[in-house]
Amino acid sequence: MTTPDTSTDNAGLEILGRDECLRLLAAAPLGRIVFTHNALPAVQPVNFVVYGMDIVIRTSATSRLASATRDTVVAFEVDDFDVDARAGWSVTVVGNGRAVTDPEERADLERLPLHPWAPGDRSHFIRVETKVITGRRIPKETPGTAAG
Amino acid sequence: MTTPDTSTDNAGLEILGRDECLRLLAAAPLGRIVFTHNALPAVQPVNFVVYGMDIVIRTSATSRLASATRDTVVAFEVDDFDVDARAGWSVTVVGNGRAVTDPEERADLERLPLHPWAPGDRSHFIRVETKVITGRRIPKETPGTAAG
Repeated sequence: MTTPDTSTDNAGLEILGRDECLRLLAAAPLGRIVFTHNALPAVQPVNFVVYGMDIVIRTSATSRLASATRDTVVAFEVDDFDVDARAGWSVTVVGNGRAVTDPEERADLERLPLHPWAPGDRSHFIRVETKVITGRRIPKETPGTAAG
Repeated sequence: MTTPDTSTDNAGLEILGRDECLRLLAAAPLGRIVFTHNALPAVQPVNFVVYGMDIVIRTSATSRLASATRDTVVAFEVDDFDVDARAGWSVTVVGNGRAVTDPEERADLERLPLHPWAPGDRSHFIRVETKVITGRRIPKETPGTAAG
């Protein structure tokens, strides 16, 4: 492992600072929650809101997502890429996913502007308590990509 | 668990057939590979090509992604959502991720139109052997989303 400089990782990608990661995360309309289901990796797109440093998702209490994230470490990813420019950014959170069961906390979260896109009952809240947030960018100015 | 009908899952999402999943996967410019790194869930956007039923990704041999996917089960996700319409689709593959080391197989993969977006040496091929492919759609016609 080589030591990256302050702004570029050892894969040549620009490292985004924490504030920029949080700004991009908060502005993203949709993210992908990554979890384990039946001992296999699983991923699901969801809409969400950022609440303090945490991510809040609404789903059905009987969903695969709800069952698999009651008390476990999950990842959450947002990105935006310009395919023509072959450039863009991604931000990933790793944190504790948990079901929200406390009535006061639930009442707080119900006031958030969080309206699931999918139909049906979505009365279950998942809260991801952000522990680590990281981001990378492929800038538009990158010259041609070398391949070995 | 209720029994879904043939075209809608128990979350009310439209279930995409295998052929449609493969078509959407093959046409997607970018996906996200989901793996485990240091016993934590990890996710990384990558460009890719579909080769037969498999997914081929190029990265650096020293990358976190390369180390974590030499012989393990991974997930791979593509999606496309229309934020204004609150509609879109996602397709997820689960399969065996492995490093390509056979010289003949490498030579085959080097002929693919796979040009990494990120800079630097990307001479390591990861092949995800698709075992399961599933997809869901939130159709544009969905009436207002109910929340419990």
